[in-house]
Amino acid sequence: MSDRVYNFSAGPSMLPLSVLEQAASEMTNYRGSGMSVMEMTHRGKIYQAIFDEVKADLRRVMSVPESHEILFMQGGATFQFAAVPLNLMGENGTADYAVTGNFAKLAAKEAKKYGNVNIVASTEETNNTTIPTQDELKLSDNASYFYYCANNTIYGTEWNYVPETKAPIVCDMSSNILSKPVDVSKFGVLYAGVQKNMAPAGMAVVIIDKALAGKELPYTPTIMNYKTMIDKDSMYNTPPCYTIYMLGLTLKWVEENGGVAGMEKLRNERSSMLYNFLDESKLFKGAAEKAARSGMNVTFRTGNEELDALFVKEATAKGFANLKGHRNTGGMRASIYNAMPVEGVKALVDFMKEFEAKNG
Amino acid sequence: MSDRVYNFSAGPSMLPLSVLEQAASEMTNYRGSGMSVMEMTHRGKIYQAIFDEVKADLRRVMSVPESHEILFMQGGATFQFAAVPLNLMGENGTADYAVTGNFAKLAAKEAKKYGNVNIVASTEETNNTTIPTQDELKLSDNASYFYYCANNTIYGTEWNYVPETKAPIVCDMSSNILSKPVDVSKFGVLYAGVQKNMAPAGMAVVIIDKALAGKELPYTPTIMNYKTMIDKDSMYNTPPCYTIYMLGLTLKWVEENGGVAGMEKLRNERSSMLYNFLDESKLFKGAAEKAARSGMNVTFRTGNEELDALFVKEATAKGFANLKGHRNTGGMRASIYNAMPVEGVKALVDFMKEFEAKNG
Repeated sequence: MSDRVYNFSAGPSMLPLSVLEQAASEMTNYRGSGMSVMEMTHRGKIYQAIFDEVKADLRRVMSVPESHEILFMQGGATFQFAAVPLNLMGENGTADYAVTGNFAKLAAKEAKKYGNVNIVASTEETNNTTIPTQDELKLSDNASYFYYCANNTIYGTEWNYVPETKAPIVCDMSSNILSKPVDVSKFGVLYAGVQKNMAPAGMAVVIIDKALAGKELPYTPTIMNYKTMIDKDSMYNTPPCYTIYMLGLTLKWVEENGGVAGMEKLRNERSSMLYNFLDESKLFKGAAEKAARSGMNVTFRTGNEELDALFVKEATAKGFANLKGHRNTGGMRASIYNAMPVEGVKALVDFMKEFEAKNG
Repeated sequence: MSDRVYNFSAGPSMLPLSVLEQAASEMTNYRGSGMSVMEMTHRGKIYQAIFDEVKADLRRVMSVPESHEILFMQGGATFQFAAVPLNLMGENGTADYAVTGNFAKLAAKEAKKYGNVNIVASTEETNNTTIPTQDELKLSDNASYFYYCANNTIYGTEWNYVPETKAPIVCDMSSNILSKPVDVSKFGVLYAGVQKNMAPAGMAVVIIDKALAGKELPYTPTIMNYKTMIDKDSMYNTPPCYTIYMLGLTLKWVEENGGVAGMEKLRNERSSMLYNFLDESKLFKGAAEKAARSGMNVTFRTGNEELDALFVKEATAKGFANLKGHRNTGGMRASIYNAMPVEGVKALVDFMKEFEAKNG
């Protein structure tokens, strides 16, 4: 790692070093084109080839079926909080939302502008340390769609199953996409802001069952219209070209490291190392219920705010960056996305042991 | 230029070589932080310092008055086509649009979803080779705002004056922002997709008179709400962090080269070189009316489609990229934004002379 730190940021977050190095090496002249990818017209052959390859690579890596289209849209997950109801709510005027964290809550709030929102589950009572079981979901009969957020970045919880519902499933996978195999065919719309496991901030990948498009509300902004984006292959307007290129470099790295199955193996290595230590530790305690633990964001605390602050301070000095928990929760959070090396987590656990020996 | 071509793309387009080189050199470790700007949390001190500096630099470079806020929003100009009426149409339910090209036309079409749109001028009859005079604008009495596009990328025309109107002025400056001094106080909202004169694609800079915010229609997506974006200093959600950083590098380059006054001098050098040649040439002919000529996009043709195609082909082979005109117009277009070196235009004119000698 030499001059680089282990960056445990929840997002934007670490990218593979080799991806950054390749981007740097191609910055002023992309493969003999005489220009940067940043400078290319999106209507030209060179950029079109990049774009097509990224889409094909993502389709292969995630095994996206032909029934589904891959879209690259600007605006991140927050944009989708509006785009989802604007495009899908019209069917029955009502939708089911499972609220297990901050971002699902914001999505549900936004959706209320566009129709009736049924909160079919809420984990507010447990401070979002849990995930509802299938039986706990109070699904309605006439929902246009069922919405949930697969991994709750702030609280460090993750759904370990895909719910069974009558309505099409819409899922925000911003913080765990590409970290394990997913059966895309189960989802009506699956989307992810790219700034955690895919690319620099500024885009969402949207994977949509084409049969669901074309039912948008009349005042839907064109740039939010899934049907338009499908018809124009994400190029109704200038797409975030460079971000797409960066996603392409990340996808090559994912494939070189065993694809999503390889990512899952690394994910399990990283997270079990941390959780096993937390379960043994007398000083540190995991924040989420065991059954709901996230493989991407590990939340923990000492129970003493001053000690938490000291830990974050000393860790930062040692090159473990961004371990402070979200302001909603306090404590600590180690976000261990795909690009976090296993050695980074090992080094963190060693440091936590040292800290415990000194302060336990 | 060594291994780089002269890239006349209409957008995304050339960036200053020194900007790209600096971005490459800081890619894996931004100034001792141990991480790429792409990997930084937007809630951290290091990124906040970058963000604040870019805003301050843009305020200084464009002399933005305190009455106006600077926003960084995702989605480019197309996003603003909806955001403008969603935020501003509510005042009187009606707006004035001057349609002098493709993008103003698309903006007017989008606005019709949200209220009454008066087309106060249209240059369709001249194939958009002209710009209306102040007297030709049939302004209405009760417009919530007056909208125009300052430079028409496709047709190579540019407004050389700011209209006088009762209503607040909304202006799309995507293709001429930072190319000359602008009196920002004259505008209610001034915005620009960044992919021509500022940064890689994926963002719009919005400069808004704060007094105009807070009148959005009830179904405005939160991510499009100017008031929310002002209140949250463009960080309601994760902003396109790296694009903002790139804009910062470009702004430093603009200041090193004399600010917007320096840009205007270079702009005049580049465009007069080309227009002077076109006015002398017996083979090539400028497409726009003289009074409406753009300093950014120079449209021209031979009058013979086969010869146009031959010209583009031979120019490309010589390292003059992307000279083919837009599909709406045919012919040729040389987009000569801020980052196009004067030598690039000189070399192009020399090549055009050679071509004329051979084919005239």
